[in-house]
Amino acid sequence: MKEHKETGKLKIIPLGGLEQIGMNITAFEYEDSIVVVDCGLAFPADDMLGIDLVIPDVSYLKENLDKVKGFVITHGHEDHIGALPYVLRTINVPVYGTKLTLGLIERKLEEHKLLDAVKRKTVRFGQSISLGRFRVEFIKTNHSIQDAAALAIYSPAGIVVHTGDFKVDYTPVFGDAIDLQRFAEIGKKGVLALMCDSTNAERPGFTMSERSVGKTFDSIFAGHQKERIIVATFASNVDRVQQIINAAYRFGRKVVVEGRSMTNIIRTATELGYLDIPENTLIDIDEMKNYPDDKMVLVTTGSQGESMAALSRMAADIHRKVSIRHGDLIVFSSHPIPGNERAVSNVINELCKKGADVIFQDVHVSGHACQEEIKLLYTLIRPKFVIPVHGESRHLKAHANLAGELGYDKDHIFILHCGDVLELDEEEAKVTGHVETGDILVDGLGVGDVGNIVLRDRQKLSEDGIIIVVMTMESRSGEIVSGPDIVSRGFVYVRESEDLMDGARMAAEEALEKCMDARVTDWGKIKNTVKDSLSSYVWKKTQRRPMILPIIMEA
Amino acid sequence: MKEHKETGKLKIIPLGGLEQIGMNITAFEYEDSIVVVDCGLAFPADDMLGIDLVIPDVSYLKENLDKVKGFVITHGHEDHIGALPYVLRTINVPVYGTKLTLGLIERKLEEHKLLDAVKRKTVRFGQSISLGRFRVEFIKTNHSIQDAAALAIYSPAGIVVHTGDFKVDYTPVFGDAIDLQRFAEIGKKGVLALMCDSTNAERPGFTMSERSVGKTFDSIFAGHQKERIIVATFASNVDRVQQIINAAYRFGRKVVVEGRSMTNIIRTATELGYLDIPENTLIDIDEMKNYPDDKMVLVTTGSQGESMAALSRMAADIHRKVSIRHGDLIVFSSHPIPGNERAVSNVINELCKKGADVIFQDVHVSGHACQEEIKLLYTLIRPKFVIPVHGESRHLKAHANLAGELGYDKDHIFILHCGDVLELDEEEAKVTGHVETGDILVDGLGVGDVGNIVLRDRQKLSEDGIIIVVMTMESRSGEIVSGPDIVSRGFVYVRESEDLMDGARMAAEEALEKCMDARVTDWGKIKNTVKDSLSSYVWKKTQRRPMILPIIMEA
Repeated sequence: MKEHKETGKLKIIPLGGLEQIGMNITAFEYEDSIVVVDCGLAFPADDMLGIDLVIPDVSYLKENLDKVKGFVITHGHEDHIGALPYVLRTINVPVYGTKLTLGLIERKLEEHKLLDAVKRKTVRFGQSISLGRFRVEFIKTNHSIQDAAALAIYSPAGIVVHTGDFKVDYTPVFGDAIDLQRFAEIGKKGVLALMCDSTNAERPGFTMSERSVGKTFDSIFAGHQKERIIVATFASNVDRVQQIINAAYRFGRKVVVEGRSMTNIIRTATELGYLDIPENTLIDIDEMKNYPDDKMVLVTTGSQGESMAALSRMAADIHRKVSIRHGDLIVFSSHPIPGNERAVSNVINELCKKGADVIFQDVHVSGHACQEEIKLLYTLIRPKFVIPVHGESRHLKAHANLAGELGYDKDHIFILHCGDVLELDEEEAKVTGHVETGDILVDGLGVGDVGNIVLRDRQKLSEDGIIIVVMTMESRSGEIVSGPDIVSRGFVYVRESEDLMDGARMAAEEALEKCMDARVTDWGKIKNTVKDSLSSYVWKKTQRRPMILPIIMEA
Repeated sequence: MKEHKETGKLKIIPLGGLEQIGMNITAFEYEDSIVVVDCGLAFPADDMLGIDLVIPDVSYLKENLDKVKGFVITHGHEDHIGALPYVLRTINVPVYGTKLTLGLIERKLEEHKLLDAVKRKTVRFGQSISLGRFRVEFIKTNHSIQDAAALAIYSPAGIVVHTGDFKVDYTPVFGDAIDLQRFAEIGKKGVLALMCDSTNAERPGFTMSERSVGKTFDSIFAGHQKERIIVATFASNVDRVQQIINAAYRFGRKVVVEGRSMTNIIRTATELGYLDIPENTLIDIDEMKNYPDDKMVLVTTGSQGESMAALSRMAADIHRKVSIRHGDLIVFSSHPIPGNERAVSNVINELCKKGADVIFQDVHVSGHACQEEIKLLYTLIRPKFVIPVHGESRHLKAHANLAGELGYDKDHIFILHCGDVLELDEEEAKVTGHVETGDILVDGLGVGDVGNIVLRDRQKLSEDGIIIVVMTMESRSGEIVSGPDIVSRGFVYVRESEDLMDGARMAAEEALEKCMDARVTDWGKIKNTVKDSLSSYVWKKTQRRPMILPIIMEA
């Protein structure tokens, strides 16, 4: 009997996360089965005024709900898990991940009161799960959060390896090094495509081991035995926190943890056994006063200059329990994420003004693979097709260039855009279609009720404010019985600009009279006339373009 | 006859520019004479929504107008000359500077129609000018703009050296190296205080010579002989432009210059003899089409990702004459100024998406002295007192630490704040007072008509928009004859949120009825009641805090 030859093709559809930071989510589809890798959120771009976070438009999954078998999650960072509580409301399928990853997801589901509604399954490294026509194997990697996994996705059309976010750490602080042997083994079987982290594809060389930061802490602690030490770092980098605790313990200091996200993650990591804190080392922030400066370390959030984070509040003197004092040593164990440089610098300035010493260089290593690590993975896996993932356009392009250096032809390298449908099998790969994707903006409780028009209005309001012209019109006669009155906000100091505002009212009045004289009765026309004449008056006088909003009341 | 012994003290009063970027302006006062060094503007901070630029509050100079002898300008960058056209309107005293510096100032005065009203005098290096009780000598330095000067300010109380912005370039592209001999000579005489550039005080080592960038251009041009090359750099860095022109000439390429500020500065620099362009090298942008890609270079503004600059418009495909094509080579000959990283990265992403290759590393050197150069200056000048200038708090502190390493006691180092009055003579230096200073915001034609309240309103408007509640009240009866009507902007998609807006109107109505029932007639109270109840309704439904603006019309 002849073996059944599969003729179907595998579809890979990124539903977010390419060309921009965050919002990683990719659908893998084979016939009646869809498996989704990750489900992250993005933080709003600068022009998304007032927006709290951005989640992916998963219309495609909704339309194919009966096919979707589950979410497989590579690791517990927000840009890979953050949209789950929103998406699971409509696409309630099981979630698969390693222990810490699921622990962090569960905290999220709890907050959103979804814990009972969603099925979860913890997967061990080396273990595989079957999801419809797919089998997904979790492979140990290293990253700036523990329990990060790469995925080998077995489909009838071939194997795709997705690295998740990774680096190669031969001497990780916790657990094993990346499972390079397994990558080689799967590579030997023949891999159809590699979807590999592009974050550091512009950077030559290797990323240093996380353990190297531990040595730096030791030398900082050794060199500052008299000072109070405050270390700011990423809440989710449990290994980093572990190394700060280790240094503190070695130098006889107690550790205080401050910042909500930091406290939460440390609790989860400790409960699940990912953090080893010597007894009597952790103290509560309220106990700080019982210890001299040289006997304690404060570990805090705020390494990105986030205005509401603990360190920023300390720097601004609005933290309720800690104020920065002359001689304090503040260590930024982080690099600013692109876009946060100014905010971080502002916090450093505030700390310096208060007489603190600040160390912000060389107390951090990246969690992402540099060029040599990326090449190592390609050399172990030898995929047929190259699909750079996780990065902005510049990083995807740098990654594609690397693949070119490794000998890949251009037609074997695919820089995908969100929504692209890449169909592939052993013979060929090509983009055959496009599905609907996009950003859904979350603002307060509202999901998707703020879009481009609202954002454009906020932009305009933020630049030059608003001028409101109100008038009351007698409905039958069409006569103005009250107004026009002018009110402005965010435009000028009204008290010091009385002439300007008087002039504005007169411009509105004149426009209105013109309408009355011409017997214009259409409210839309009247509003436009008032708006235009006020707008040109204001531009002439101030060269500003506030939003002008005429309101006609009916009496 | 005994020599007259001076007993007065020299006052140094920074009126802007410390702790923040830009707005360099410092008053030197001795008895009846004030000399002002520089008069720069600052670009608005992130929270100054809609503001175009920031100029210093010079109330102190206005109050002492009869003492002010002139402005002495170190170099032609915006943060040193940009506020002149605003300040000279009220403080019309002569302006002194080197040739290129004055050339750039004159362009500015021309734009502001002040050229005839203001006296100017060109000063050569080595030359001194007498200004009341002061004599000011201009000393050659190097910087990222030509004709930069340090100032030796001779007062009866002693000599102060102000470096302006400087680096040590032994092999400058144009003109002489920094006049280290003269610094040593003045140092020998005895210098009271050194006010030295702090910008790079955090960076160890030396800043490379500008000439090193020329070599990089040569190797880039050699490696890309087929491609169209576009180089983005700072408009004011004439030496950089010179080196691009030199490389273009060597490789047989024509040069096109694009971007208003770039064109302006190149014209001024060429007229004054600071730029040497081989004949038939410069072509107009409209002639581009007559040359193949490998026979031209485009030099453009936009290296900081400024949204309206030429390169950004090319990247966004909205430039009228140039569009980026697959295979173009774009060179960023610049580093992002802190705060611009995200904008620059966005432009790089757009360029990559269009298939361009982008080089952004190692094609730039700083114009500011690093630690070893700063130490060199101290060692030549050996001032008694140390006054770090030009930098944010973190840089001033790093500079103070450097001075500490050089052996200066803490009580000889002064980190001044804006408005501080530092009094000094041979015996001692101390801060003895404080004068009024501050930021004046320029928005369109308005100078100072936008302040904190307006900015706070813009901030609020930008985050959650505005809800306006209008009602008309019959004046005698106090009855509501029309409304309340609700209008919103920048809040939600109104069409998709009808229930929400209906609820808001009902909340306003209920609040109003409550007022009527309680016979409240005070409009202020009525407005507050409506505002509060609408505000809590909106928060409950959306967790947003739009600005809520009740307007009562009288009929």
